[in-house]
Amino acid sequence: MQDFATQAINQHLKLRGKLSIALKDTLDTREKLSIYYTPGVAAVATYVAEHPIEARDYTWINNTIAIVSDGSAVLGLGNIGPLGALPVMEGKSMLFKHFADINAVPIVLNAHTADEIVAAVTAIAPGFGGINLEDIAAPICFEVEERLKAALDIPVMHDDQHGTAIVVLAGLINAMKVTKRNLGKCRIVVLGSGAAGTAIIKLLHKYANPEILAIDSDGIISRNRKDLNEAKEDLLNYTNPHNKQGSLADALKKADVFIGVSKANLVTGDMVSSMAKNPVVFAMANPTPEIMPETAKAAGAAVVATGRSDFPNQINNALVFPGVFRGALDSGITKITDQHKIAAAEAIANLVKKPTRDLIIPSILDSKLVPTIARAITPSQ
Amino acid sequence: MQDFATQAINQHLKLRGKLSIALKDTLDTREKLSIYYTPGVAAVATYVAEHPIEARDYTWINNTIAIVSDGSAVLGLGNIGPLGALPVMEGKSMLFKHFADINAVPIVLNAHTADEIVAAVTAIAPGFGGINLEDIAAPICFEVEERLKAALDIPVMHDDQHGTAIVVLAGLINAMKVTKRNLGKCRIVVLGSGAAGTAIIKLLHKYANPEILAIDSDGIISRNRKDLNEAKEDLLNYTNPHNKQGSLADALKKADVFIGVSKANLVTGDMVSSMAKNPVVFAMANPTPEIMPETAKAAGAAVVATGRSDFPNQINNALVFPGVFRGALDSGITKITDQHKIAAAEAIANLVKKPTRDLIIPSILDSKLVPTIARAITPSQ
Repeated sequence: MQDFATQAINQHLKLRGKLSIALKDTLDTREKLSIYYTPGVAAVATYVAEHPIEARDYTWINNTIAIVSDGSAVLGLGNIGPLGALPVMEGKSMLFKHFADINAVPIVLNAHTADEIVAAVTAIAPGFGGINLEDIAAPICFEVEERLKAALDIPVMHDDQHGTAIVVLAGLINAMKVTKRNLGKCRIVVLGSGAAGTAIIKLLHKYANPEILAIDSDGIISRNRKDLNEAKEDLLNYTNPHNKQGSLADALKKADVFIGVSKANLVTGDMVSSMAKNPVVFAMANPTPEIMPETAKAAGAAVVATGRSDFPNQINNALVFPGVFRGALDSGITKITDQHKIAAAEAIANLVKKPTRDLIIPSILDSKLVPTIARAITPSQ
Repeated sequence: MQDFATQAINQHLKLRGKLSIALKDTLDTREKLSIYYTPGVAAVATYVAEHPIEARDYTWINNTIAIVSDGSAVLGLGNIGPLGALPVMEGKSMLFKHFADINAVPIVLNAHTADEIVAAVTAIAPGFGGINLEDIAAPICFEVEERLKAALDIPVMHDDQHGTAIVVLAGLINAMKVTKRNLGKCRIVVLGSGAAGTAIIKLLHKYANPEILAIDSDGIISRNRKDLNEAKEDLLNYTNPHNKQGSLADALKKADVFIGVSKANLVTGDMVSSMAKNPVVFAMANPTPEIMPETAKAAGAAVVATGRSDFPNQINNALVFPGVFRGALDSGITKITDQHKIAAAEAIANLVKKPTRDLIIPSILDSKLVPTIARAITPSQ
């Protein structure tokens, strides 16, 4: 990784920003000034003010979203603040543009509480056709997203939650085919109960209602725990029906599926060996997985996925967010629902015609990916 | 104007937004994904978080501003709201890009009070190198700008105030040459005491301390008026030293200069005839001036300027804002001061080598305009 780090530093300093604003027409005559600016634009301003629904047809709203972060949970780096978040948001904007031709404006917030973040995003929302919340720490991220979805009439999605949940479900659908399992009958262990873990658990519950155990740094989340915040308390509505207690190692015994969205090296080969036969291991901590693929395979894992591009089966939300927002903007939907998420996951899974242990998920460079997801997002869902 | 209105409506509907986000490099290989996004960008995020002053060198902050409006005073259309403001802000962004190669992101606010506007702009400020406030109604605009200038360490300028004041001063400097006057000895009548009028009065006072009368819809602003808000009370510190009372017509008798930033047709030929010999008339109401140029000239005006491109001497803040922000970004200044405004006005005026009654101000299409203004904005001012 050191090599990419050095190259990234040098290249960012050279470019001085990865994005720019481009004009859809030149502005080289007085006539164009009079049409795009004063006096002509006054007629457009008046019309749009009187016909707010049509504003998207006369402005860039129809193809423009904000990528909003307060910098409180940037990549695996933690709370590094809005300036630290900006290079990541610019990078994400590049992906939106390159893969889905969406204008995504990075907005990094000097805002710390849910109230402040909600107020800021509500204030700037009129000029955007969607809001991608990004790298906002749990548990604030849950409240922020729920309140914004209720307040705004444009799609709002916290990608760390739902982008991750969608791509994990897509990968699991195909891992089930490879290992000849039924997802609804699996025992699943989810390690990490922040933004991603919570959304994964809820989407899997909605999709197939498997038996799930949620694990945080203090072990299995159970009714006996007295240290749970409201978000983790809520997870008990989706997990641990038999109120098991214990450690990660305890949880993994006989489990069919491990899903890690936590930290490096928390899972051993012995733990994988203790799982059910031919287990599925998604070790998605970045940059170092919970268990390295070769170790997991040696311990018997039938399918292994990570978040990294240098191993097979890269489970990355970059597979998801361009297509989901492309579909949302194209369809003019105002809320991204669980049905949209499931439709997107199935569309991604179905792009792999014959899943194998080393091919459960399409490549991010697959040109069919974005249009296929976008078509799956329809207003009636 | 009808023709431009129809063309503008059609052309805006055709383009569906005048702006887009462009990428400074392609994103067509896994290597570039790894440099511009994960994992490489993590090194940039970490570095920037630890070296906040250098953030502008690694992100688009160095060349990107926000154009912020709440839509409360859009062009001459009044309080038409944020959606109505958006086509105007997109148009302004085109001017920033075309004339000064600045990325200007339109941000239209669902925010109504000074507190709400200040909170929203403060929240989004970390991702921008400057803030152009636009089309925010008086008197809220004054409080918003002052509070943001105090709170932020990037240049903040309400263009309706200072862009207008700078270009008016530039025009007046040359009108003084044409009519062989000394600005400091002039009697000046300013009609309109909103954002533009207030800033014009304060900048003229700072520059040359002429005798100024401010007029609003109730006549001359004097100490006898009981209906003045705080902003208009404050104007008495810069105007009306002899506490004159009366109407616009009363004020104009023997005046050397009329500056109108108000409404159509408020000034008659008789009023101009009552002014001092060879008076200067800046009738800048849009789209219809306070008095038409031919009427003012027939009544004896030596120099007439308007806001319109179809008459000589177009006094438009579009001459100003691209160059001022270009200079501010290039110099890394954190506040735009009165000295910067005066330097910009003198730079604009000096671009007209031999001012005449029909040529007191350079063309907006003059390629020397932006670099000349930008060079005049220096950190030591």
